[in-house]
Amino acid sequence: MAHEHSHDHVKGHAHAHGHSHDSAPPATPDSFDEAAHQAQVQATFDLYRRAALSSNQRRRADFYALPKRHRDLLPDYNSLLREVDEKLQVNAELVQRMIEANPFPPPEDAALDAPAPTDADHERLRSTLRQCVRDWSETGRNERDTAYQPILDSLASCFSHLSPSEKAEIKVLVPGAGLGRLAWEIVRAGFSCQANEFSLHMLIASSFILNNCSTPNEFTLHPYLHSFSNIRSREDLLAPCLIPDVAPSDIAGGEAEFSFAAGDFLEVYGDAPGSWDVCVTCFFLDTARNVVAYLETIHGLLKPGGLWINLGPTLWHFEADRDSSSLELPLEDVKALARKIGFELSDEREVKTCYTTNPLSMLRHEYTAAFWTARKV
Amino acid sequence: MAHEHSHDHVKGHAHAHGHSHDSAPPATPDSFDEAAHQAQVQATFDLYRRAALSSNQRRRADFYALPKRHRDLLPDYNSLLREVDEKLQVNAELVQRMIEANPFPPPEDAALDAPAPTDADHERLRSTLRQCVRDWSETGRNERDTAYQPILDSLASCFSHLSPSEKAEIKVLVPGAGLGRLAWEIVRAGFSCQANEFSLHMLIASSFILNNCSTPNEFTLHPYLHSFSNIRSREDLLAPCLIPDVAPSDIAGGEAEFSFAAGDFLEVYGDAPGSWDVCVTCFFLDTARNVVAYLETIHGLLKPGGLWINLGPTLWHFEADRDSSSLELPLEDVKALARKIGFELSDEREVKTCYTTNPLSMLRHEYTAAFWTARKV
Repeated sequence: MAHEHSHDHVKGHAHAHGHSHDSAPPATPDSFDEAAHQAQVQATFDLYRRAALSSNQRRRADFYALPKRHRDLLPDYNSLLREVDEKLQVNAELVQRMIEANPFPPPEDAALDAPAPTDADHERLRSTLRQCVRDWSETGRNERDTAYQPILDSLASCFSHLSPSEKAEIKVLVPGAGLGRLAWEIVRAGFSCQANEFSLHMLIASSFILNNCSTPNEFTLHPYLHSFSNIRSREDLLAPCLIPDVAPSDIAGGEAEFSFAAGDFLEVYGDAPGSWDVCVTCFFLDTARNVVAYLETIHGLLKPGGLWINLGPTLWHFEADRDSSSLELPLEDVKALARKIGFELSDEREVKTCYTTNPLSMLRHEYTAAFWTARKV
Repeated sequence: MAHEHSHDHVKGHAHAHGHSHDSAPPATPDSFDEAAHQAQVQATFDLYRRAALSSNQRRRADFYALPKRHRDLLPDYNSLLREVDEKLQVNAELVQRMIEANPFPPPEDAALDAPAPTDADHERLRSTLRQCVRDWSETGRNERDTAYQPILDSLASCFSHLSPSEKAEIKVLVPGAGLGRLAWEIVRAGFSCQANEFSLHMLIASSFILNNCSTPNEFTLHPYLHSFSNIRSREDLLAPCLIPDVAPSDIAGGEAEFSFAAGDFLEVYGDAPGSWDVCVTCFFLDTARNVVAYLETIHGLLKPGGLWINLGPTLWHFEADRDSSSLELPLEDVKALARKIGFELSDEREVKTCYTTNPLSMLRHEYTAAFWTARKV
């Protein structure tokens, strides 16, 4: 089995498109200076420690600005802030290790042209840390079970007649692969798989986990320190999360290949020949500015009769972005479009799942995600 | 029964603090020009039609910028946008009626000093329209049943021994009253009630509904046109909602009084004598910059032995606001604080509920809200 985390298909740019409402979408590829972006992302990782401690320092300053009578009613608040500081330092060590292993370091001098990290950049990094929980921790198991398992089950049942070495010949593409767990699970199930991801934050974190983590539960992350809202108790706020839950290198043997391609989906696969057996899209379609182009590209890259498995919502990422064009279709219109483009849909259903949710939080964002499998006709 | 929607306790300022993550919190009262704010809010209502149609026009422009081959795959998209335009016009008529009845019109010339409405202002108005659905439509019934009913049940059981005219002597205060439905239900249950609200958007909408709507289902609103994300079908996107579901003037007889006080809770009630029998806080505590001051004020305004009923999350509204101080406590710390201030808590439990959620949406934000009743000791 070749298990390499190759970044050799670099085309286009790496962008964050965290699956949340409030992350400002990035600029369009055209308006983009690659080196400056790399420098800005590098600076975001480098500044994590300072930005996180500074947010907590704001809390401390606000506390000391309260009337003494109020402070006296909160005798343990200061010690809570101290504990948060300590655990932010633990996070910062992990973030520092990730950026030290950055497979896409900016060229020298690029920092001169790079804008300073914005609030949105810092939020993209925090979102990447939440992705670590989703993809590579025991805490994320429920999300993975609800979102990835229907896909893995569908794959397994479609190819159950194949021998292990025949399975390893099946080429699966996972665009929008994030931190790579779904692609990794597909390889573990015996298929060859290429993960594709655009976000440089994600690429840095996934490279670190896949290439630099050797034993389970090697690193500690405290993922819930960045917001005190909707938290039941101090323990919940401070809770640790161990990553990775598995040894990433421990993919059961066989000839299956695993690769990771960095770059924009449309740029990397837009004119790909129909050479893929399967395309798996999980929380991906709605990252499109133009979902027609996404569906055409998926159709084009598949072999005749090839399989497309989709699971995800229609939270159109560029709907609120004034600097980008955006096409937002109701779910039923997406399906009608897929049929027009040349897919035969089956096993259509809805799956309730979350995305980088804190399971301890008193606020829960639950998606009713659409699931289907489709054949290229 | 005196049922007047009096706005005669105006102190402080009216602000939006929509219960959502992404609405930028307003400035602190101190930094605030009242007349300019009134003019800005008035302008936001006045510009609703143009802003809404312009968002939809952006969709049309983006569609026409697609390659013709892509447009041909979406033959019905244009007619969808046309229908959305038509229904936005229906919304705009309601918004226009609301602002024509504005009980807080800006002084002449105030518009000269007022900043133009920002994206956040437009979002506050859209959030106010979603509040209309929550408080005054059949669509909002589930949210009201889950959030208001536990409070109404608790009130009813605490005062079940009273005669109707004794009940009418019980003075209930509802700060953060929003569009007033909970306060209205409390009056309908026979208690005297004062609603208090700070947001001028809310005050304009609640005044319109309470004073200008005479018959059930008088107005049509299409509340889901502003975002195409997480929508299953065209029908769901275009769905109408009739308001109000009841005739607001139709509160069953008796001597109970109903009043509406505009202004900041701390400014209006900060030094109030202990003259209230009950304080009801529903999705309110976390609007505090300083929750200690809120709890002190609730304690101060109650009679000895007075009752405090709370239901809500701890989504601290000012946590991300750089221009405001903010104190964010885990839920358990809020309860410990309440005990220190002089409350005896009972009936503590958790209640699952939503807040201005589109029940048809494929994305659901569900709160595990904290409920308790407390006695001033």
